[in-house]
Amino acid sequence: MHRTKVRVVEDALDANNTIAAANRGDFDRASVTVVNLMSAPGAGKTTLLERALDGLAEEGLRVGVLEGDVQGSFDADRLSVLHIPVVQLNTDNGFGGECHLDANMVRSALPAVPLDEMDVLIVENVGNLVCPAEFRIGEDARIMVCSVTEGEDKPLKYPLMFRACELVVINKVDLLEHLDFDVERLEANILQVNPHATVMRVSAKTGEGIDAFRVWLQALPARAGAAA
Amino acid sequence: MHRTKVRVVEDALDANNTIAAANRGDFDRASVTVVNLMSAPGAGKTTLLERALDGLAEEGLRVGVLEGDVQGSFDADRLSVLHIPVVQLNTDNGFGGECHLDANMVRSALPAVPLDEMDVLIVENVGNLVCPAEFRIGEDARIMVCSVTEGEDKPLKYPLMFRACELVVINKVDLLEHLDFDVERLEANILQVNPHATVMRVSAKTGEGIDAFRVWLQALPARAGAAA
Repeated sequence: MHRTKVRVVEDALDANNTIAAANRGDFDRASVTVVNLMSAPGAGKTTLLERALDGLAEEGLRVGVLEGDVQGSFDADRLSVLHIPVVQLNTDNGFGGECHLDANMVRSALPAVPLDEMDVLIVENVGNLVCPAEFRIGEDARIMVCSVTEGEDKPLKYPLMFRACELVVINKVDLLEHLDFDVERLEANILQVNPHATVMRVSAKTGEGIDAFRVWLQALPARAGAAA
Repeated sequence: MHRTKVRVVEDALDANNTIAAANRGDFDRASVTVVNLMSAPGAGKTTLLERALDGLAEEGLRVGVLEGDVQGSFDADRLSVLHIPVVQLNTDNGFGGECHLDANMVRSALPAVPLDEMDVLIVENVGNLVCPAEFRIGEDARIMVCSVTEGEDKPLKYPLMFRACELVVINKVDLLEHLDFDVERLEANILQVNPHATVMRVSAKTGEGIDAFRVWLQALPARAGAAA
């Protein structure tokens, strides 16, 4: 009697990483650099994009946005006035109201994303300081936004998120004069958990520091290409 | 041949609700009213407690706190100066760094909580606007704190959290004069998703509105008793 040899796969790949790799392949074929943008709710991710992406196409960088939210399209509606490709992805229908985006959710949205119209795709994750950091979506770089109204201790309380990011944007610095907030202590705490992080101070409201953020974005495709 | 009748239990209780009921039994036996305190990271839960709980024992309400964090004991350390029972519960050891507290985590911490020394136990949940609202822990009431730095749209983007709470505390109103923030619009959005919510404006920093919050806490055991 002929028996097929049974092979036991002991190192089964994590399903999320498998799908993230498939996303990565699609992004590479389209020559799109992908950013996973994360923060706590209300830190100012969308306002940062409103301010930073305006006019970037005229400077030679075509950016598109995939907006992740539990429900609604408030953020996508805000960005649509910039005349850039914006796609809304909600986690409540079919994804159980998830508190983060994973590779499969992003994959399910990709048919609606015109990758050939952009150099950089920014995926704005669900506002959450814990779970989004655990799920790769096929991105080249990860940015987190933290606001000076949130407390200097956040990198020590949510280290995984701060450790996962190449760039930490400290937002709402226009409010510093009204707060008992030690921004140097926040920066020291960020570098304690992630010594390799680039840290920027910005105010998406006033525009302070936004030029440096735009330059970082503009240099991203070349950096990602060199790392690949 | 004798056959045992096979019974198929179709409405198996959700494990979390089963354990929440067990917690509830322990709280009832100890005559402790329990509050589940939730918010996004940095909305000011701990600062609110620092301000509101100080001296409450002298006014006849003995409050204890169970502090939930992914890691560290920063918040518990801050509250320990109030000379009230404070217990730290971390979600990273044994609970996979969960982004919320569930009934089983709270149950595992109960042996360390001196229920006989308190009238009210406040469980400060992990900072997160999504998942904590999905897990009952055996509480009598749920409070959420939202800050005026977070955006007026948050109730519409995270309705489950706002819908789950009896009291919504709008914190950091001392910053209103420095923000483009329409607090009436936030309140209207809260009441749109939860018409039964009590809404309070406070500044944990300046103390504005804190008296009303203390009165709400002091009346809670009688309200919870009447509802039981």
